[in-house]
Amino acid sequence: MTSRARSGAPSAPEPPSSQAPGTVRPGGRTARTRAAVRDAVLTGLVEHGYPGLTVEYVAEHSGVHKTTLYRRWGGVEGLVADALDLAGEDSWTPPDTGSLQGDLRALAQEIADTFGDPAGAAAPAAFIAAAFQSDRAAEALRGFYAERFARCAPLVARAVERGEAPAGTDPGALARAVSAPLFLRLFITREPVDAAAAGQAAEAALAATRAGVYASPA
Amino acid sequence: MTSRARSGAPSAPEPPSSQAPGTVRPGGRTARTRAAVRDAVLTGLVEHGYPGLTVEYVAEHSGVHKTTLYRRWGGVEGLVADALDLAGEDSWTPPDTGSLQGDLRALAQEIADTFGDPAGAAAPAAFIAAAFQSDRAAEALRGFYAERFARCAPLVARAVERGEAPAGTDPGALARAVSAPLFLRLFITREPVDAAAAGQAAEAALAATRAGVYASPA
Repeated sequence: MTSRARSGAPSAPEPPSSQAPGTVRPGGRTARTRAAVRDAVLTGLVEHGYPGLTVEYVAEHSGVHKTTLYRRWGGVEGLVADALDLAGEDSWTPPDTGSLQGDLRALAQEIADTFGDPAGAAAPAAFIAAAFQSDRAAEALRGFYAERFARCAPLVARAVERGEAPAGTDPGALARAVSAPLFLRLFITREPVDAAAAGQAAEAALAATRAGVYASPA
Repeated sequence: MTSRARSGAPSAPEPPSSQAPGTVRPGGRTARTRAAVRDAVLTGLVEHGYPGLTVEYVAEHSGVHKTTLYRRWGGVEGLVADALDLAGEDSWTPPDTGSLQGDLRALAQEIADTFGDPAGAAAPAAFIAAAFQSDRAAEALRGFYAERFARCAPLVARAVERGEAPAGTDPGALARAVSAPLFLRLFITREPVDAAAAGQAAEAALAATRAGVYASPA
C-alpha cells in the first residue's frame, strides 16, 4: 500500500516509484535498505500510530536487524524523521495548465484527490499525527513542506510573466494559501474535502494573489 | 493551568471562568462534577496525550469514582468528547471593531495569541491530536468548530450592512478562511505564527470575501 504509485501532491509524503522494493538504483544496497526501512516505518505508523511504533516492529517488517536500526537511525524518532526525508526525495512538480487559475485549481484538486483516497491519505496523515508527539518528526515535517512549497516557484514565475500575479509574489505563501483550507478541513475541523472545497481554496488564493497579499513590498 | 481565564478564541477549547472549580452555578453538583472531570481530562491530555490517557487517571485527578466515570461517560473516548462539548459552552463572540478588515485582523490575532501562549495552546492542541486517534474526538471537534464558526454570523451581517462584503457571504467559510493559514502553520507545517502571519491571513480572507469567493450564487 505504501509503495503504490500515485501522482505527487504537495501534501503527500510518498515514495517515488523508482524506489519500489527490489529496484536496482544508484545507491544500491544501502538505498534499498533505507527504502525497506522507510516502508516498514510507514506501515507501522499507519497501523499503530506513532505511540505504537517500535524499533522491533520496523526490524520485523523490514528484515533489517534491530541493532542496525539503532546504530543508523538512533531509534523511533530518527526512523520517522528519515522516512519523511526520503518521502521528500521525489520528482513532484506543480501543475502547468497555462493559467494561474488553472494551476491553482489543479493543485487544490491534487490535494483533495490524495486525501480523498484512504490509502493515499494514510501515510501523510500518520506523519502529521506523529509530529504531535515527536519534535524530530515535527522538524522533518517542517522541512518537507518548506521544500515542497518552494517547488511552486516556477508556477508563480509563469503567472508573473503572464501578468496574472504581481511581481514579488511569494511562491511559498501562495502554496500555503491553496493548501491551508483543505488541511484545516482534513485535520482540524474534520470536515469533508470535495471538489467544491478545492475550488473555493483555489479561488480564494487567486483573489488574494491578485490583491497583492502575497507580494512583498517593492 | 487548564482553568486560568483567557480571552475566548475560535480556536481555543477552554473552560469559561464561570465554571471554575467550586463555583456555584445552575446545575449544581452535577455541573461541578462534570467540570472537575473535564479539567482532569484536559490535564491528562496535555500531560500524556490521548494514547496515555486512562479512566484511572481521570478518576484520580477529578476525585470522581472510576465506576461513575464508566457509567456516565463510557470510557476515555466519551470523556474526551464530553470535555470538548463542555469547552464549546462558553460565551465567546467575534470581534466588533467597526470594520470588516479590523474584525478579521482581530480574529486572526486572537488565534495567534492563543496558540502563541504555550499554556493556552496545550489543551486545544491536545484535542486536535486526540482526533487523530479517536473517531468520537474527531466528531466532537467537528461539532465544536462548526458551532464556533457559526458564531461569526453577526460579524458578516455587519460587514454586509456596511457594504464591505457581498450579500450571501457565508460566515462559516470566512471564519475558516481566517483560521486556516494559522492552523496550517501550527499543526501541519509546524511554522511560527506571528503578527505578520496573522495579518496576512486576515488580508487574504478580506480579498477573497471582496471578490465574492465566499458568497453563494444569488
